Amino acid sequence: MIDSDVYRRQGFGQSLAIAPPFGLLVVDFVNGFANPEQFGGANILPAIRNTAILLAEARRRGWVCAFSRIVFADDETDGGVFTQKVPSLLSLKEAEPASEVVDALAPIPGELVVRKTVPSAFFGTNLTPWLVKHGVRSLIVAGATTSGCVRASVVDAMSWGFHPVVLSDCVGDRALGPHDASLFDISQKYGEVMTLRDFMSRPEIHARLNA
Amino acid sequence: MIDSDVYRRQGFGQSLAIAPPFGLLVVDFVNGFANPEQFGGANILPAIRNTAILLAEARRRGWVCAFSRIVFADDETDGGVFTQKVPSLLSLKEAEPASEVVDALAPIPGELVVRKTVPSAFFGTNLTPWLVKHGVRSLIVAGATTSGCVRASVVDAMSWGFHPVVLSDCVGDRALGPHDASLFDISQKYGEVMTLRDFMSRPEIHARLNA
Amino acid sequence: MIDSDVYRRQGFGQSLAIAPPFGLLVVDFVNGFANPEQFGGANILPAIRNTAILLAEARRRGWVCAFSRIVFADDETDGGVFTQKVPSLLSLKEAEPASEVVDALAPIPGELVVRKTVPSAFFGTNLTPWLVKHGVRSLIVAGATTSGCVRASVVDAMSWGFHPVVLSDCVGDRALGPHDASLFDISQKYGEVMTLRDFMSRPEIHARLNA
Amino acid sequence: MIDSDVYRRQGFGQSLAIAPPFGLLVVDFVNGFANPEQFGGANILPAIRNTAILLAEARRRGWVCAFSRIVFADDETDGGVFTQKVPSLLSLKEAEPASEVVDALAPIPGELVVRKTVPSAFFGTNLTPWLVKHGVRSLIVAGATTSGCVRASVVDAMSWGFHPVVLSDCVGDRALGPHDASLFDISQKYGEVMTLRDFMSRPEIHARLNA
Repeated sequence: MIDSDVYRRQGFGQSLAIAPPFGLLVVDFVNGFANPEQFGGANILPAIRNTAILLAEARRRGWVCAFSRIVFADDETDGGVFTQKVPSLLSLKEAEPASEVVDALAPIPGELVVRKTVPSAFFGTNLTPWLVKHGVRSLIVAGATTSGCVRASVVDAMSWGFHPVVLSDCVGDRALGPHDASLFDISQKYGEVMTLRDFMSRPEIHARLNA
Repeated sequence: MIDSDVYRRQGFGQSLAIAPPFGLLVVDFVNGFANPEQFGGANILPAIRNTAILLAEARRRGWVCAFSRIVFADDETDGGVFTQKVPSLLSLKEAEPASEVVDALAPIPGELVVRKTVPSAFFGTNLTPWLVKHGVRSLIVAGATTSGCVRASVVDAMSWGFHPVVLSDCVGDRALGPHDASLFDISQKYGEVMTLRDFMSRPEIHARLNA
Repeated sequence: MIDSDVYRRQGFGQSLAIAPPFGLLVVDFVNGFANPEQFGGANILPAIRNTAILLAEARRRGWVCAFSRIVFADDETDGGVFTQKVPSLLSLKEAEPASEVVDALAPIPGELVVRKTVPSAFFGTNLTPWLVKHGVRSLIVAGATTSGCVRASVVDAMSWGFHPVVLSDCVGDRALGPHDASLFDISQKYGEVMTLRDFMSRPEIHARLNA
Repeated sequence: MIDSDVYRRQGFGQSLAIAPPFGLLVVDFVNGFANPEQFGGANILPAIRNTAILLAEARRRGWVCAFSRIVFADDETDGGVFTQKVPSLLSLKEAEPASEVVDALAPIPGELVVRKTVPSAFFGTNLTPWLVKHGVRSLIVAGATTSGCVRASVVDAMSWGFHPVVLSDCVGDRALGPHDASLFDISQKYGEVMTLRDFMSRPEIHARLNA
């Protein structure tokens, strides 16, 4: 369907170094996006299950972990273009269970939770300074949706200088067409794309930082 | 191909107000992206021809116009993740014709030209302050590539509070699959998508600002 | 004490246009900064009293109003350089009265409240997009401290393209030396500085937007 | 003159860790700021001489070095609030010797030079991503003016998560009052302040990165 020959001929899609220190970013895996009746669907639930495995590994290895949530003010004054295009997003308020990270991935003390009102987890948040403080070089990315907030966060991650690694079975979308299209774009231009299993078998992630 | 039912059911894809003051952003329509042998291909050349018509209209109406170019330092010290994924981009240097805006769209005094090293025309540039200075509300977007720097710029435009209007025949890509997929995502979540002809027939753009 | 001749000779300190639409920014006027035993002192309390008058005028005229608070996460994971230099700031947590806007200036629905962990109210918040959404051109600035978060916010305001107007008796600091020094710098380089009384007598603020 | 008792009592002015990797930022040491008849004066020339010593040390140790220049477009379309307050700044154009880094500190290949139109060297530039790419933790700051572009850059440096170290005799200003006042504020809230001699005697800078 997608003609990837032109990308190869023009030099796209080279590999990115995957190197410590690692950080993990879990984008918008909140109850409202786990619910197919609200903002979820397609392959989001299996992606959450895989991310639970990834999160446990990340914590075991001492990687810093960050989470994003979409949260609008109770008076909705911080709504903008995003909520004009998708008014239902305004239901994601601080006290609404729909805006909370799913139980299976609940953040623990020392992990950063950023609230945002736009697609990227970096925009209007303190995610970049927190990653700088921890010296993160490669940012492992999970979350939803692949074609929305995950992709926007990956583009910002690489623009800020971090190496994004998107685990294809730890990200999900409400429809598979946009999911696949964004994974293609990311793999060609913005980061590495691989399965959780392939990632866990990479020797780089087992190396000690200063070995 | 793409199942848009789920988007409609979840409330995506509503219309965005198109209102003055207008600004025009032309993303990366430089010689290197006009050349199918370098970074171009598919529908980029017709998009440039349509943008020439759009640019003439914008200037006639007094809309502010901005252009972006990808430009790396001669010593390439500002290369990063983008150039690890696409090393050939490093050929875009200040003095290289490949990095210059195509003749048909050459900027004139008073129009902003931003140099960038990442996908978004907003990132690491003074585009936002310049649009704020001019009080721009709706940002008309043309350029290349739809699935790359155009899309990244649209996501940033809406995140900064501007209303993006992407003219589907004034943006182009090196392959049609990514072009179509990104126009779908933009129309669902980030901005308005319409043809140049449809845009020029919209009553909002003929209104006087303070009428 | 300060030799302002050199500034005049080099062309500094020219006037900035003060023009609608207006917005009001109230920086960190929270209980902890109103308390001389915590982060307050010197002229902060009178500045809060003057700001109550200013806020009432702003609301009467329909200007958009925004407030900033310093708030750290309960687990303090978002502390950084600022809290290494000033560890006591970590006491400003969401549920602590010290981090709440003082009663006399309590925000009402439709007014933006941004939480921040650094000096500037613009950094890592959605203040810029919100001002863009409302088309603000001139930003009236009150708050504390003049030499700290007010000044940092003013520098960012002008960098983002807004015209800062700092009301000298609506900003306060814990010591008068830094207060005076920052008002001098702002008046020379970043914005207009005047008293509340002088500001209220300016004809520009009484003009109708589209008159 | 300045009552620092209140700062001490409230817990300000603690020490910041100074740790590798180091980077050096030289702010606006260009010909126009070296010239007392243009934007210079007071202690700027001795600060440039000291910075030449610092720069040689930084290069010898392999620290990454970045420079900022104020540069406006030939058509001045990127002028803004800063040039309304200080119209003479518009003389700093790409081809003007006044905008060039002074010969004694001329950048060499591999060192980043950012062009800016506002006070901070971080704002609207790719300085942050470049420092992230190089993993910089502590940022040594020299340049002019202390109360202007140096201070604004220091506030942004600490907001982005870097540890600023300002060398008091490698920064200069056109008048000593603002110079002293800003060094006081920086030492209380934003970074470490010390002389070049004291800095060079700190054991941290002689440690090997991974020792």
